[in-house]
Amino acid sequence: MKPIYIALGALAVVSAGTGLAVVGAERDPPPSNASPIYGVTLPDGYRDWKLVAPALEGDPLNELRAVVGNSTAIEAYRADTLPFPDGTVLVKLAWKRIQSPEFEPASVPGAATTVQVMVKDSKKYATSGGWGFGRFIAGKPVNEAQHETCFACHEARVRGHDYVFTRYGQ
Amino acid sequence: MKPIYIALGALAVVSAGTGLAVVGAERDPPPSNASPIYGVTLPDGYRDWKLVAPALEGDPLNELRAVVGNSTAIEAYRADTLPFPDGTVLVKLAWKRIQSPEFEPASVPGAATTVQVMVKDSKKYATSGGWGFGRFIAGKPVNEAQHETCFACHEARVRGHDYVFTRYGQ
Repeated sequence: MKPIYIALGALAVVSAGTGLAVVGAERDPPPSNASPIYGVTLPDGYRDWKLVAPALEGDPLNELRAVVGNSTAIEAYRADTLPFPDGTVLVKLAWKRIQSPEFEPASVPGAATTVQVMVKDSKKYATSGGWGFGRFIAGKPVNEAQHETCFACHEARVRGHDYVFTRYGQ
Repeated sequence: MKPIYIALGALAVVSAGTGLAVVGAERDPPPSNASPIYGVTLPDGYRDWKLVAPALEGDPLNELRAVVGNSTAIEAYRADTLPFPDGTVLVKLAWKRIQSPEFEPASVPGAATTVQVMVKDSKKYATSGGWGFGRFIAGKPVNEAQHETCFACHEARVRGHDYVFTRYGQ
């Protein structure tokens, strides 16, 4: 974890003048399991959170996905609250899509791939629409370059839905 | 609802000698929102249950699906308990799969289609592997003919997994 930790420290210094929301620049360094740029960690117990909606991500990833949310997220979805309130956390689980060996028309989750997290904190993440992002593989955050793509895409495509793609599956 | 209620009553009488697990034959008639043959109703609060796994059902249905389970179900999955204990309830939500208007590689839930329920009660449903089935559209059970197909398919394809297709998405 040490190399990631050092990289984060360097990032904090380098980015201090760029307007990015950098976590830990003036506090303790973020933990080694926190995402670059945002310092987002995998929330405890997210696998037990309530379902927002499933999705299919086509080629080249070819993944089945499911977004779950904490109670703040679910309440906001049900009340059509936009923007999402601070404290909202969304987690997207993803698996390779494989053919069901038991039912021809169906495809089902294979190996887990990424877990992606969005955390709403309008002050902490003021320069990224109020959202912090984290993308994890096997519990570890992916690199900074990947995290640089998160907000740009959300900003370009779903600004009108508070930068969140997923809608609640009624 | 009255016509459905009458049909269920007739079913109970007609089926009494067939060995099918018929609910209500010797008790109060099942409610009009209960499935034919099995008398299964939509469980309260299922939309808030924990996720088991998503799935894609290909053509001709072309649906995104997500199975959720009650606490008995989730505990059994995590402990690899087979057969599932009495009290297990699984609910499969399903939506038409539509192209995401915001992200080309993704498809997402459109209109809700069916909600399908499996209830484990090894005594009550002794002649169908211990499972009662219910298939609902807009909160109402579909007809008897559709319910006659449930167990036959599960029995033919997933007997070795206690008649349950869905595995837990790790």
